Amino acid sequence: MAPAKKGILERLDAGEVVIGDGGFVFALEKRGYVKAGPWTPEAAVEHPEAVRQLHREFLRSGSNVMQTFTFYASDDKLENRGNKLSFTGAQINEAACDLAREVANEGDALVAGGVCQTPSYLSCKSEAEVKAILKKQLDVFVRKDVDFLIAEYFEHVEEAVWAVEVLKETGKPVAACLCIGPDGDMHGVSPGECAVRLVKAGAQIVGVNCHFDPMTCVKAVKMMKEGVEKAGLKAHYMVQPLAYHTPDCSCQGFIDLPEFPFGLEPRILSRWDMHAYAREAYNTGIHFIGGCCGFEPYHIRAVAEELAPERGFLPEASEKHGNWGAGLEMHTKPWVRARARRDYWENLKPASGRPLCPSMSSPDGWGVTKGHSDLMQQSEATSKDQLKQLFDRSKSQ
Amino acid sequence: MAPAKKGILERLDAGEVVIGDGGFVFALEKRGYVKAGPWTPEAAVEHPEAVRQLHREFLRSGSNVMQTFTFYASDDKLENRGNKLSFTGAQINEAACDLAREVANEGDALVAGGVCQTPSYLSCKSEAEVKAILKKQLDVFVRKDVDFLIAEYFEHVEEAVWAVEVLKETGKPVAACLCIGPDGDMHGVSPGECAVRLVKAGAQIVGVNCHFDPMTCVKAVKMMKEGVEKAGLKAHYMVQPLAYHTPDCSCQGFIDLPEFPFGLEPRILSRWDMHAYAREAYNTGIHFIGGCCGFEPYHIRAVAEELAPERGFLPEASEKHGNWGAGLEMHTKPWVRARARRDYWENLKPASGRPLCPSMSSPDGWGVTKGHSDLMQQSEATSKDQLKQLFDRSKSQ
Amino acid sequence: MAPAKKGILERLDAGEVVIGDGGFVFALEKRGYVKAGPWTPEAAVEHPEAVRQLHREFLRSGSNVMQTFTFYASDDKLENRGNKLSFTGAQINEAACDLAREVANEGDALVAGGVCQTPSYLSCKSEAEVKAILKKQLDVFVRKDVDFLIAEYFEHVEEAVWAVEVLKETGKPVAACLCIGPDGDMHGVSPGECAVRLVKAGAQIVGVNCHFDPMTCVKAVKMMKEGVEKAGLKAHYMVQPLAYHTPDCSCQGFIDLPEFPFGLEPRILSRWDMHAYAREAYNTGIHFIGGCCGFEPYHIRAVAEELAPERGFLPEASEKHGNWGAGLEMHTKPWVRARARRDYWENLKPASGRPLCPSMSSPDGWGVTKGHSDLMQQSEATSKDQLKQLFDRSKSQ
Amino acid sequence: MAPAKKGILERLDAGEVVIGDGGFVFALEKRGYVKAGPWTPEAAVEHPEAVRQLHREFLRSGSNVMQTFTFYASDDKLENRGNKLSFTGAQINEAACDLAREVANEGDALVAGGVCQTPSYLSCKSEAEVKAILKKQLDVFVRKDVDFLIAEYFEHVEEAVWAVEVLKETGKPVAACLCIGPDGDMHGVSPGECAVRLVKAGAQIVGVNCHFDPMTCVKAVKMMKEGVEKAGLKAHYMVQPLAYHTPDCSCQGFIDLPEFPFGLEPRILSRWDMHAYAREAYNTGIHFIGGCCGFEPYHIRAVAEELAPERGFLPEASEKHGNWGAGLEMHTKPWVRARARRDYWENLKPASGRPLCPSMSSPDGWGVTKGHSDLMQQSEATSKDQLKQLFDRSKSQ
Repeated sequence: MAPAKKGILERLDAGEVVIGDGGFVFALEKRGYVKAGPWTPEAAVEHPEAVRQLHREFLRSGSNVMQTFTFYASDDKLENRGNKLSFTGAQINEAACDLAREVANEGDALVAGGVCQTPSYLSCKSEAEVKAILKKQLDVFVRKDVDFLIAEYFEHVEEAVWAVEVLKETGKPVAACLCIGPDGDMHGVSPGECAVRLVKAGAQIVGVNCHFDPMTCVKAVKMMKEGVEKAGLKAHYMVQPLAYHTPDCSCQGFIDLPEFPFGLEPRILSRWDMHAYAREAYNTGIHFIGGCCGFEPYHIRAVAEELAPERGFLPEASEKHGNWGAGLEMHTKPWVRARARRDYWENLKPASGRPLCPSMSSPDGWGVTKGHSDLMQQSEATSKDQLKQLFDRSKSQ
Repeated sequence: MAPAKKGILERLDAGEVVIGDGGFVFALEKRGYVKAGPWTPEAAVEHPEAVRQLHREFLRSGSNVMQTFTFYASDDKLENRGNKLSFTGAQINEAACDLAREVANEGDALVAGGVCQTPSYLSCKSEAEVKAILKKQLDVFVRKDVDFLIAEYFEHVEEAVWAVEVLKETGKPVAACLCIGPDGDMHGVSPGECAVRLVKAGAQIVGVNCHFDPMTCVKAVKMMKEGVEKAGLKAHYMVQPLAYHTPDCSCQGFIDLPEFPFGLEPRILSRWDMHAYAREAYNTGIHFIGGCCGFEPYHIRAVAEELAPERGFLPEASEKHGNWGAGLEMHTKPWVRARARRDYWENLKPASGRPLCPSMSSPDGWGVTKGHSDLMQQSEATSKDQLKQLFDRSKSQ
Repeated sequence: MAPAKKGILERLDAGEVVIGDGGFVFALEKRGYVKAGPWTPEAAVEHPEAVRQLHREFLRSGSNVMQTFTFYASDDKLENRGNKLSFTGAQINEAACDLAREVANEGDALVAGGVCQTPSYLSCKSEAEVKAILKKQLDVFVRKDVDFLIAEYFEHVEEAVWAVEVLKETGKPVAACLCIGPDGDMHGVSPGECAVRLVKAGAQIVGVNCHFDPMTCVKAVKMMKEGVEKAGLKAHYMVQPLAYHTPDCSCQGFIDLPEFPFGLEPRILSRWDMHAYAREAYNTGIHFIGGCCGFEPYHIRAVAEELAPERGFLPEASEKHGNWGAGLEMHTKPWVRARARRDYWENLKPASGRPLCPSMSSPDGWGVTKGHSDLMQQSEATSKDQLKQLFDRSKSQ
Repeated sequence: MAPAKKGILERLDAGEVVIGDGGFVFALEKRGYVKAGPWTPEAAVEHPEAVRQLHREFLRSGSNVMQTFTFYASDDKLENRGNKLSFTGAQINEAACDLAREVANEGDALVAGGVCQTPSYLSCKSEAEVKAILKKQLDVFVRKDVDFLIAEYFEHVEEAVWAVEVLKETGKPVAACLCIGPDGDMHGVSPGECAVRLVKAGAQIVGVNCHFDPMTCVKAVKMMKEGVEKAGLKAHYMVQPLAYHTPDCSCQGFIDLPEFPFGLEPRILSRWDMHAYAREAYNTGIHFIGGCCGFEPYHIRAVAEELAPERGFLPEASEKHGNWGAGLEMHTKPWVRARARRDYWENLKPASGRPLCPSMSSPDGWGVTKGHSDLMQQSEATSKDQLKQLFDRSKSQ
């Protein structure tokens, strides 16, 4: 039997770099197993081999954390707007825990059970109702004995605090991430103040995930760190950003971009962008560094390669990757061999190949948030009339 | 026992649309199993589960052809420039055949054995030597009884004709693809003339793969078709382009772009670009339609969805995809639900999110081709001195 | 004898729109009469017909203000860094006053005498020395009896306040403009606070000129207005921005852009951009609306055309301009006639025609300001050694 | 009395570089004296001081040719589509000749009388009618004794040949320019063949003007030169391109671009682009080098500065311009002084400052040419009904 692994807090307390995984919903959507729109994780039951394979690729690329593929697996979300599924949330959550554990055992990784914001909150359900929804997912995580918990992808700090309170009851280490940028949460609560509230609620690790590009997220976590330190508190920090460039986003992030979710390709970060991100995050004092939507295994590998000096080793997948493009020394064409060097890739400004397209977009900004009728949960499908109203409104923006 | 599947020529003769698969080397590089530079397919032996999974994703997405993952698996390539491998070409080719067959049997797909251009040709080896290299790969394909053969990724029509001559000896149907654009092969032989030579050598299917974006490749195949028809010959046509926009390429395609191979992200085609491609290819009279480097499963799914009216059915993976974004009707945010319509995605001009980057690049153009000393095969690694010369030369371009 | 014209304050007090002129140094540089680098206005003496012609074009286009072409005509600037001139500041200032008055008399325009920041201030000369430099210019303006005075292009509010104090002694109306954006002056004093200090020093009109694009400048003046109102003070507001798009500027404006001053062409605003600017400025409560570097006569005409409903008349030059492109109805090509309509031009996103160029730049940011040795005034030319040091430093940025 | 100037052919025969002038209609439109749409030159009578000033600026900048400001001054054009003018073509042509002569006498410049294509030709009038229209303009040029004649801006070589035939009758040297690119005239006659016909008709100088950017025009003239030489003929060559980048144009040039004529700003060439153009033109064997629409005086100055080594002197306006930015040595900011060097400006890729705009456009392509009803001359204004039809058609393109 293998010796027990170090827990998440032991690692962070010891100053180790912990590398997260990448984005399951977006990667599996492209592989054909997740439906964009509902974004629900029934593939854990329907196609376990596909989910297992993606876990393995992140592990090979250097991830120390296997997040259970349970994003949006709360029952209120599974039943929203006509998404007909033949599985309960519990079934999906259980299968996801087993897959994460199976692969985590193949390497030096921990299993993290994840919960995220609920449609119930946006529909103005009570604190008790929202907490009950979250509690149902947690019961599975406790039964399956995950190593720690992550509450992530919250746009409103109030709901995130409720989530932390529920998670704390399990006795497991708790990480909490908002999906906000430097402007703060949907009510304008600053990143620093958000972090303070999360720490006070009991989160040992706080940070940001999704919605913005790496450098923007690092900036937001930096503001969190400054807020926590100013308040005389202590915490660890994590960041799991998008793998998409989002210089043109407003406060709600990439959801507002006209390209979301089916035209984001030109924004995908290169591996070299990831080197810069990993370095910046580390220098900022963030030691739990991973990714969210858009992060593919090679993005995580780039993070692991940048931080190899600090960690003391390369990830397994680097057997298939030359440092800073060194593998190109074996290319047949001489001008490609000439690209086998760091300064070439570090200074490249990659072209889009799209001369009819701009470099930035004007984000949508409908200005609706929690409580607005358009955000109400409904179990029936969006009706034709509802759609027509939306289309008309979008034309007049 | 299942009834025998219809062969490739029967399908094309009957006017059916045959959908190819996507790009294995690039997809598996991003998943951590192939090394950019040598680009050799030893993962078929080392990590069969990863190769099998990718085959399955393409099958789910609508592919009727499982190409054996044997690109560049000729012995002269496997041994080039210090690429130390512990497998022989035969071992890799055999494993790749077994994987392709296993997955093909799970659906309505054929197995195609593939060979491509050899370093030996560029090193000015004789016709006999080049043919012997190709013959070695073929022996495996015959033993494993693939359904048909594809000679692809040839820059020089002369070598492609040699390949077709070798392949014909097996008695199996032969497809032949050059990696050229409308300007023709590296010696300026026009697409029309190239196609005529390939058909005369015995290829039943001719076309173009890799090196250029979809619309450019379709244009080149159109010129092939016109050439073949003008010569009073008959053939079927295929196209398997890049999934990267390449408006700025010169005759040697994306290899020359400064972004090749590690900065191509902003050029990746969206699924909507793929709809336009599939329609254009079909309208041109090309019925074997697939992809090459950069094609992920969702790209193939988009091809299959565009041609669903002609084929009469959707691919399996469309269970997880709403037609023209229809799945967004289930999104929580109203402005994203408003994007659930064809005209939105068809007219979108996606932004790059990279305001410091241009839309086009100046391709490298070293003007070296077959026989140039820089292209000579060598089994030892590129030396430091050789690299220094290359770097110096690249600076003065 | 013509009836006396209404003065600047009478006009603004009556709620009239006052249209400023455009940018003389940039326009005359392109016409061959001003040298980029020193940017001094000796053309007023050397080529009066060229200066007179430009005044006339602005008058025809709708300007109500003829600013004397005396930018940087302080003796300390005229003698800086080897700029050998055969004229004294007084000679230039006198000639400029005569030209402005001559053309102003041809229409409904006032003459404004202008002073701007001095190299002496950046070289840490005393308040008395700086004021003495400014006083020398003023003596001419008083002798020539200009209608009012503008202190403009100050990066430091301290120096601007000194200038206002000197100007007030003449008894003429005083306008004061800083060349700052929303981030405030070079010491971080906010636009609101800057405006308060200028009003308290005696300026009746305050605002912003140069350094940023129109919308950015309007935003900064809006902040000034809010500051003044919050302080319980009263003022009129003016704005004279660049005619270049500068979304990528940092606090020191377009000087820092790599394109300054010889590569700014792709950033030039169209006449339609000017319509939007004029409307926004007016809606913000700014009634003295003009332009600075890059503004050509047709830009001022566009401002006057946008505000024709408020002013009740079109400028003379509109005889040669159809409203919103209406003149195109007379074009020979039908597809150009089809562009003779407002919504076409209002929605156009004009292409750069430069596919190898980006849309934004990284500004220089040397972080030197008042008092730094690199900013010291010197009468001898920049030496070879000094240049070499600068080049080396620029490479390492 | 001054010694007689060398004629245009003497200069070119002696191998001298002859520098043309820039674009009057676009420059004077921006200054407020020409109406976009009809583009007619009545300013020669209405505002002679503005036309004289522009002539002088080009002379100062190095022009050896003062073209009479008589573009589109044929009576059939002056009366087209409701362009109400109170001057006859003869009055305008006479005034323009006097202005050109007056300024030419101030320096080393010749006067060239210019004619261009007629609406009558597009309206299918007979050869005799078209020639009569052209003859009317010529009578003035002969009476005013211009130094040579230029037939320019012809889209159809047939009409250009007619023009050359008429011009030859005067006995003066004749230059002939088509407004075509490498694809040839509107009927697909190649540049080489066009040039041969023009030379055979009697033109001593042939070339290209307007419609395309400098490098494209040089390429077209190169093809003309090759055609003429292949035919065993002899000629001199000239080029007077746009000062706008047009990589995205189809055969009819910038008229088709959506930005024509009021959104072309981002495409304006920098002075450094002009250096490259002048060098390329000279190296191609073109010795009469000027500009057309968009060329401002500083563009011509850049041409003259690039060719100063060949000509042996700088233009007068270079007193106000440092070689390759040398004047920046006198700038107050050190980082701007650091830009006072050739390699800085030669390698700059200027940003557009327009992140919401693309780098290229899709040109209009209505496919109408000579004889199409939409191109017919009509003296009454375009009617509301005609406009509505055009708008509707433009929406459906």
